Amino acid sequence: MLQNILIDKAEALKPELFKQIVKPSRAVHVTRDAEAFQGWRMLDAGSPEDAYVKIWDRSDEIILDFCQYCVGYLSFEIESEVNVDCPLRLKIIFGEVPAEIGEDFSDYNGSLGRAWLQEEILVLDDPPEKVRLPRRYAFRYVKISAEYNSPYYKIKIKNIQCETVTSADMAAVAALPESFSAGLRQIDRISLDTLKNCMQTVFEDGPKRDRRLWLGDFRLQALVNYHSFKNFDLCKRCLYLFAGLVDENGLVPSCLFERPQPHSGRSQIYDYTALFAPSLLEYAQASGDWATAAELWPVAERQLRIVLKEVDGGGLFQDNKKWWLFIDWSPRLDKQTAEQGVVIFSLKKALELSKALGREPETWIKDAIVKMSDAALKHLFDQEKRVFVSGRDRQVSWASQAWMTLAGVLPSAGAAEAISTAANTPDAVKPAGPYLYHYIVEAMLAAGMEKDAYALLEQYWGTMVRLGADTFWEVFDQQDQYLSPYKSHIINSYCHAWSCTPAYFLRRQANK
Amino acid sequence: MLQNILIDKAEALKPELFKQIVKPSRAVHVTRDAEAFQGWRMLDAGSPEDAYVKIWDRSDEIILDFCQYCVGYLSFEIESEVNVDCPLRLKIIFGEVPAEIGEDFSDYNGSLGRAWLQEEILVLDDPPEKVRLPRRYAFRYVKISAEYNSPYYKIKIKNIQCETVTSADMAAVAALPESFSAGLRQIDRISLDTLKNCMQTVFEDGPKRDRRLWLGDFRLQALVNYHSFKNFDLCKRCLYLFAGLVDENGLVPSCLFERPQPHSGRSQIYDYTALFAPSLLEYAQASGDWATAAELWPVAERQLRIVLKEVDGGGLFQDNKKWWLFIDWSPRLDKQTAEQGVVIFSLKKALELSKALGREPETWIKDAIVKMSDAALKHLFDQEKRVFVSGRDRQVSWASQAWMTLAGVLPSAGAAEAISTAANTPDAVKPAGPYLYHYIVEAMLAAGMEKDAYALLEQYWGTMVRLGADTFWEVFDQQDQYLSPYKSHIINSYCHAWSCTPAYFLRRQANK
Repeated sequence: MLQNILIDKAEALKPELFKQIVKPSRAVHVTRDAEAFQGWRMLDAGSPEDAYVKIWDRSDEIILDFCQYCVGYLSFEIESEVNVDCPLRLKIIFGEVPAEIGEDFSDYNGSLGRAWLQEEILVLDDPPEKVRLPRRYAFRYVKISAEYNSPYYKIKIKNIQCETVTSADMAAVAALPESFSAGLRQIDRISLDTLKNCMQTVFEDGPKRDRRLWLGDFRLQALVNYHSFKNFDLCKRCLYLFAGLVDENGLVPSCLFERPQPHSGRSQIYDYTALFAPSLLEYAQASGDWATAAELWPVAERQLRIVLKEVDGGGLFQDNKKWWLFIDWSPRLDKQTAEQGVVIFSLKKALELSKALGREPETWIKDAIVKMSDAALKHLFDQEKRVFVSGRDRQVSWASQAWMTLAGVLPSAGAAEAISTAANTPDAVKPAGPYLYHYIVEAMLAAGMEKDAYALLEQYWGTMVRLGADTFWEVFDQQDQYLSPYKSHIINSYCHAWSCTPAYFLRRQANK
Repeated sequence: MLQNILIDKAEALKPELFKQIVKPSRAVHVTRDAEAFQGWRMLDAGSPEDAYVKIWDRSDEIILDFCQYCVGYLSFEIESEVNVDCPLRLKIIFGEVPAEIGEDFSDYNGSLGRAWLQEEILVLDDPPEKVRLPRRYAFRYVKISAEYNSPYYKIKIKNIQCETVTSADMAAVAALPESFSAGLRQIDRISLDTLKNCMQTVFEDGPKRDRRLWLGDFRLQALVNYHSFKNFDLCKRCLYLFAGLVDENGLVPSCLFERPQPHSGRSQIYDYTALFAPSLLEYAQASGDWATAAELWPVAERQLRIVLKEVDGGGLFQDNKKWWLFIDWSPRLDKQTAEQGVVIFSLKKALELSKALGREPETWIKDAIVKMSDAALKHLFDQEKRVFVSGRDRQVSWASQAWMTLAGVLPSAGAAEAISTAANTPDAVKPAGPYLYHYIVEAMLAAGMEKDAYALLEQYWGTMVRLGADTFWEVFDQQDQYLSPYKSHIINSYCHAWSCTPAYFLRRQANK
């Protein structure tokens, strides 16, 4: 019953979307090029109008470049000068990046379902007509092919456009001051474009894939939003959705779906669960809506009590193999120490929230923080090497230093030393993707390593920009442009909000 | 303006369709079998319920056999026991005959557009849900495949059914008397099923392809309809559509489309044009609606005047290469003599119509009949061989004898002799398809060759039955099951109303 009320509150906050018509800027050809990102380059092929006036023959195609990332509904008009004597079969492929247009989807062999690859087969019995695709697509490039059409008529396809949708109000955001370098301002702009395209009726992780609300992704999106679009109601809606979909033990889902009615996904990520409390605190701090924080406090508290069940009597997190430990996509990473850090960090944020709400002192939280911090220093910190280690093999990783820094287990000088030590350890496990890079930068800033933090930001996200990113990516390994957790680079999401946080760092700094 | 009024009258006669729910009778597998029709056989694979309870994996499929020919709208329900984490991509292929299920559509290399091959690619963002395909399909078999689905959930597809549509009222038709053989009664039943499935808001030539109204096809469909369903309004609607869509010279279209608004196709078939007048007479005779015949008389008259422009001063039809001469699909056939016969036949029917309408004697028609009949006897009849010949090479064909017989140029004994002579001439051009076979049978009956007529009917259409026909086919050559005017047997129509006329012959005989 309570949960239904929470879901109702969430649904009442469902935003109206901003809509805008975007037209393609040019026609292109796609070609193999070993120098280009993922081996594919787009070559200019004239204006879209030139493409439109082309008379289509049996098997013909056009590729259009919208020159910006779009999330929305494609429409076009079909014109035929003679009677259409056969249904018109069109294949429409959408690409976030050139590789999706260049590769053949039928060769796809990844670990996720191929339906994520954006392809529409349209059979129109009675063209000409105006067509508007009912599914929402996320793309910069569109390839439209007539598939073995009738020889008895030819068509023109024209007035191709996209009605984009977002719940982000771009007009509400000022540009970053010119005191920032052009490169940083570009990174900021692309970050905001990334977030904007993920902001729909929830904060989606990515508008191409998975198109759903993940708790850990949400926290980062919300942080950027508080410094840019300031759509507090969307954050509130998401918090209510998480709270309204707790399971029989009171556990919030790590991911959830909006349709056909709000329901939770099956994945339970340990670190995401811990981050509900920090997310609630940050929402209240940004919006001033402490009433919602008070209403949802029991949910935040419950998450921490659940999380603490995995902490042993000695104050150490132990992996019982029942949870998905995320932290990062790196397959080599030992996650014990990072998870220990996430929990301590989250307990501290919860304590801060409890105080702000004027609650009685939560001694169980304080006790847990002390016990886990002591255990971390005693068992997970190599006093000799001055670096945090993780697991039986005492693995050194960037992740462990980042989360222990954010947990505040060491004074900031010690944290900076640990981060630098890991960075200078050749076999230390490095981050595999933008989500963890966020926490590395955040930890560097917390450790007073401001210069290193911004250098890393500019280097990592700037490299995506130089490779042609219109929006920032789900996965990016500077050593391997084809890296995919799903065994196919074309199924990766190339507009993924967990990589939009440069705007948070830059705008936080701008507002200092 | 007049034409708009005629179209309005046609549209007012658009029928409501009878609807019926049909469910699949069994699951099947398709397998190569050189002995089976076109090399493919269906093997029993249990009840559809067994197929439904199957849990679908990544790339899985079921083939269902409805065990009857269906024209309509497929619906089904999708059930998943866990969260659906990826859009569901289903490929649904419809087959009139096993070959369409067995062959790979991507190998298609025919001369018509591949969109006629019945394939639906469905991407569902939020299953489970009830699905009803918006396009109408024509089929006995349905193959549903999950295409490289997500590994994280499995589905059941159940309650698959088709809502069939037709404007034919099967309940209005009694079975053929038991005095007819079981074989003939089966041919009659399949004929009526063929017509029923082609009777929609017009008489379509075939519900899979081309799904439109052709004048020559219409005449045969109407003849069967007058002896079975007796849907006179549908005939009237079609006559008004033809009359309402005449071009600037008053020429009726040989084929026309209903959607998006009634409009004519480009094909102009000489013999079809001539047959408007006989079609109008037959409608009035069957329905008693002489008012419509009177209203449309000027259109019939105009068609004959147009047709006569192709007849030279000596009374002979000459091919000026501006018209499509159809008669039959046979590529070898010389069509001069058959066209001469069609025109004389149509002129005689027009004269009969004119008289029935109480009009002044149409001397121009009488004169043309005499002149063309004399010319036919003089130039197109081989007095020595007692057979009609056609073209410069004096080709002997079944088509020439049939149309000259129906034109009544010879007394019936002479006609019978000519037909027999052609039948006994080894290199005489034989019919290539059911449309011309109709006229051969009709001519045999007109020439008093009743036994030969019914033997031919039973042999030709009975062979289709023995090969597994649920409905009669557009194309059927007893020597070549793969024959196609479109270079691919899978694009042929296997429910094609121009081959439904056995019911006309059998029921006409039953009512004698």
